[in-house]
Amino acid sequence: MSLYETTLTSETLLEGYVFRVERQDVRLGDGSHGKRDIVRHIGGVGALARKPCGTWVLVRQFRKAVDCEVTEIVAGMREPGEAPEDAIRRELEEETGHLVEKLTPLGRAFASPGYTDEVVHLFFAEISAEPGSNRLDHDERVEVVEFSDAELRSAIGENELPDAKTMVAWMLACRKGLA
Amino acid sequence: MSLYETTLTSETLLEGYVFRVERQDVRLGDGSHGKRDIVRHIGGVGALARKPCGTWVLVRQFRKAVDCEVTEIVAGMREPGEAPEDAIRRELEEETGHLVEKLTPLGRAFASPGYTDEVVHLFFAEISAEPGSNRLDHDERVEVVEFSDAELRSAIGENELPDAKTMVAWMLACRKGLA
Repeated sequence: MSLYETTLTSETLLEGYVFRVERQDVRLGDGSHGKRDIVRHIGGVGALARKPCGTWVLVRQFRKAVDCEVTEIVAGMREPGEAPEDAIRRELEEETGHLVEKLTPLGRAFASPGYTDEVVHLFFAEISAEPGSNRLDHDERVEVVEFSDAELRSAIGENELPDAKTMVAWMLACRKGLA
Repeated sequence: MSLYETTLTSETLLEGYVFRVERQDVRLGDGSHGKRDIVRHIGGVGALARKPCGTWVLVRQFRKAVDCEVTEIVAGMREPGEAPEDAIRRELEEETGHLVEKLTPLGRAFASPGYTDEVVHLFFAEISAEPGSNRLDHDERVEVVEFSDAELRSAIGENELPDAKTMVAWMLACRKGLA
């Protein structure tokens, strides 16, 4: 029996600042019906960034959704029509001031496919040694945090950096021999 | 300057089937204001499950949010008041029919802390060799998919299983010498 779910009706329940919420009636493979609430998100980009000296550059920010400071790889949302590569170059420069010298795609991740369509495109970024000045959005506060190789490996392994995209980027970089 | 964001006002914009959406006005450390839309989710559990013979047991289901079939570790939502360990035992039995013989906590993951409070508690599960019958919700269709060790390692490394929690669970299990 097919797993496919056919959309019968779809309505927008909410237009938020960074996402839209949609409700669908669906028909399952056996003819029965279900309801699906879906968060529609433009999608994100993230990069595990390394300076020429081998130091990893991450960022710390307060994430109101989880009500705590979270240390993560540099990441952000794509702008409409923006390619993932362009989005991550922009985000790296905005959040850290470092320029991207080389970008290697690592893969993609579904953030939580049970209810959101968010896909994060992940990269390994080789960045400039010295940062310029960063340029944050008016309501964005970000601190740059540097890790040695041993520090980052330990922090990831000990689950001290519980952000999913950060762990995924590190894992994919390891699998490619880049971390 | 503190990164902390103080909640000034909070209102529920939407009560969905599996999440609630909240809008907050916040005050940043420098006194300026921002708006935050937050998905409130009860939180999830997931387990990288292995049979005594070494075969990995994952599941495939159609995820309407991303409109495709996704192969993932067994996972689900916690019920109100339910401990993560109880939730994952229930989910493993419901989705695969296998009983849990031993459960090892791997850590936790924030699904996408920019806009959702969802935390997934991850486990390594040693499960029974033979499945009983599964018991799915009325609008849930799940197929069990088995992987050899080499197949799973390759599929993760090649980014063929792009579900974030699946990649995170595998990475954390590897770091603990369990995979």
